[in-house]
Amino acid sequence: MGLQKQMGAILEQIKAKRPLIHQLTNYVSANDCANITLAMGASPVMADDRDEVEDMVAGAAALVLNLGTLNARKAEAMLIAGKKAGILGIPVILDPVGVGATKLRAATANRLLREVPLSVIRGNLAEIKFLAGLSQRSIGVDSTAGDQAGTEVARELSHKLGCIVAVTGKIDVVAQGNRALSIANGHPNLALVTGTGCMATAIVGCCCAVANDLLLATATGIIVMGIAGELAQQSLQSQEGLGTFRMRLFDAVSKITADELVKYGRVY
Amino acid sequence: MGLQKQMGAILEQIKAKRPLIHQLTNYVSANDCANITLAMGASPVMADDRDEVEDMVAGAAALVLNLGTLNARKAEAMLIAGKKAGILGIPVILDPVGVGATKLRAATANRLLREVPLSVIRGNLAEIKFLAGLSQRSIGVDSTAGDQAGTEVARELSHKLGCIVAVTGKIDVVAQGNRALSIANGHPNLALVTGTGCMATAIVGCCCAVANDLLLATATGIIVMGIAGELAQQSLQSQEGLGTFRMRLFDAVSKITADELVKYGRVY
Amino acid sequence: MGLQKQMGAILEQIKAKRPLIHQLTNYVSANDCANITLAMGASPVMADDRDEVEDMVAGAAALVLNLGTLNARKAEAMLIAGKKAGILGIPVILDPVGVGATKLRAATANRLLREVPLSVIRGNLAEIKFLAGLSQRSIGVDSTAGDQAGTEVARELSHKLGCIVAVTGKIDVVAQGNRALSIANGHPNLALVTGTGCMATAIVGCCCAVANDLLLATATGIIVMGIAGELAQQSLQSQEGLGTFRMRLFDAVSKITADELVKYGRVY
Repeated sequence: MGLQKQMGAILEQIKAKRPLIHQLTNYVSANDCANITLAMGASPVMADDRDEVEDMVAGAAALVLNLGTLNARKAEAMLIAGKKAGILGIPVILDPVGVGATKLRAATANRLLREVPLSVIRGNLAEIKFLAGLSQRSIGVDSTAGDQAGTEVARELSHKLGCIVAVTGKIDVVAQGNRALSIANGHPNLALVTGTGCMATAIVGCCCAVANDLLLATATGIIVMGIAGELAQQSLQSQEGLGTFRMRLFDAVSKITADELVKYGRVY
Repeated sequence: MGLQKQMGAILEQIKAKRPLIHQLTNYVSANDCANITLAMGASPVMADDRDEVEDMVAGAAALVLNLGTLNARKAEAMLIAGKKAGILGIPVILDPVGVGATKLRAATANRLLREVPLSVIRGNLAEIKFLAGLSQRSIGVDSTAGDQAGTEVARELSHKLGCIVAVTGKIDVVAQGNRALSIANGHPNLALVTGTGCMATAIVGCCCAVANDLLLATATGIIVMGIAGELAQQSLQSQEGLGTFRMRLFDAVSKITADELVKYGRVY
Repeated sequence: MGLQKQMGAILEQIKAKRPLIHQLTNYVSANDCANITLAMGASPVMADDRDEVEDMVAGAAALVLNLGTLNARKAEAMLIAGKKAGILGIPVILDPVGVGATKLRAATANRLLREVPLSVIRGNLAEIKFLAGLSQRSIGVDSTAGDQAGTEVARELSHKLGCIVAVTGKIDVVAQGNRALSIANGHPNLALVTGTGCMATAIVGCCCAVANDLLLATATGIIVMGIAGELAQQSLQSQEGLGTFRMRLFDAVSKITADELVKYGRVY
């Protein structure tokens, strides 16, 4: 069975199982992440306080941690939720939003890397380079860099941490040790809508919740977002702009089928 | 005057009076709740900190409390705002989002039930059953269960607490002691957009702010959301999905008239 | 070069420079503010915690402070970020959302006025009157009042504080000492979508980040939002309502050109 067919099967599993995806995320894109999770056929819950994350993660099939609009209290909740997820054996996906931009984010990411058994890290090249110790600083949170260096960095960080690393950019790369997949889907407008990176990570969470092969699951999540960007762009009339593009992302994710994933997916 | 006609009159009252609806809600659906409140013709304010809720509720015509993305600080603010609303004599509407899922939410709901004079509680069947002491746990926050058992549970909880109880699901039920209304509007896609329950509760707040008969006001709020779901779905073209459906909910609520409520409302 | 032409040049500068706009804002409209910033061609970052705002503002070209959903911790972060922005010499734009409604907001605004070198304050008439000491209380946060009194109040507050003051309403006024511009763009529906004031302030932040003449930059931000409201309204079909209107605002801002600003701008 080809890669895309296996990916299509993951989409169908999500719709069949409707897994609960617990997400501790930023308040900028929380609504988008919840809606994209529902569009995938999964069920979101966004509780983010230390006083209730342990109870909530107990019912979840995957945990997504996102460093946007971080504060010390939420960082503590992420550690608690992440450790509980480790005990439960459910996959933990980290989105290190803007990790190189502040000491708080860097320190939080480092604690999560040390204390939580992460399954997947998904970020842009600046963020992943920072985590791999290859750069001192990332700027902003909507950075779009992505190039052939991505494969190398993703592999290096994957080896170092023993988890899957996804670098999204012009070409997306997903690496697990020496295994690596490249994905050529996507559209530049995705970088002009806030939270599309966060949403990609949420979709990766949905896929990891139902799949055994988490490398494939991660690539599936990334490719779904990329295809959604392409379909959203293709649907635009001349007078339509980023508002319509953004809405159509949700349309596309909610309607994408296993067949379309086979048809449009460019993974190698 | 038939029920639907009385409901239509409530819609017109909201547009005439433009009541301020104070909402302490979760950050996932706060934007949606504010926009649906404006679409109803009312005015939202979402202040949620203990240091300012008392000042803010002083100018409001209804108070909505929503347990999503809860923390201890917000729970405290809800108690303060709720007590002040009681002193002011304005209706308080509780949305016990995911109440059975965590101890924090259960404890907060219990304190609110004891210490705040609630006018209305609106939840899904799992949440209402939990509050009625009929189940130990609810899962997730976008649960859709709703059945004939709803009427019984709603009545039981309404008797127990002396407030109006609305259970939304396939058939919605609104009970006040022995009085009960059932509503057959809605569409399954409403469960696939985050925050539609929260929005229904916000709309109930708008209706309760201007009406004397709060049972009727609550039913009006529920029916408006249900009809909006039907109209949004009917408007969809084949290539459109959940993103467009979601946008059309706001279109529908902002354009619904008293006549349409009479025409489309299925209440008995 | 006419005013509108200079304004058009500011739009082009934003797209050329892609400035980072750091925004400490409320969670109701944070997503909208981030997306409108991206639609302008700038880059948003919304970090709002005292533990990381100093690091984040260091990379920014403008700082926007918005008093919605305020709490003591965020107020402290605003002071820290504002002072750092002062040291860096980047423009600071304040949106005093609902400032007269609570003591917390009034006290926070007063501290910001005293301790942070503000470049621009943008609010509705009730908010600006309150800051100027002309009224005791503003109600709600989506107030729409705006009249000829606006010019006088804007000038008075501008003199008092030595910064630019923008009052938005039916006619918008932007004053810097004795200089004042009036803007006649806009549409009443803008008051029926939450966060359009916050978004206008975010756009002002984008403009101030690249311009030397901050009065002109502020007027440019205000006029862009007004024209977007007009274009969004013109595009509506009869069955479309506030949901579609809201989406089209983002379409319009993302597509507006310098030429259109010249064509549609009504500034005098």
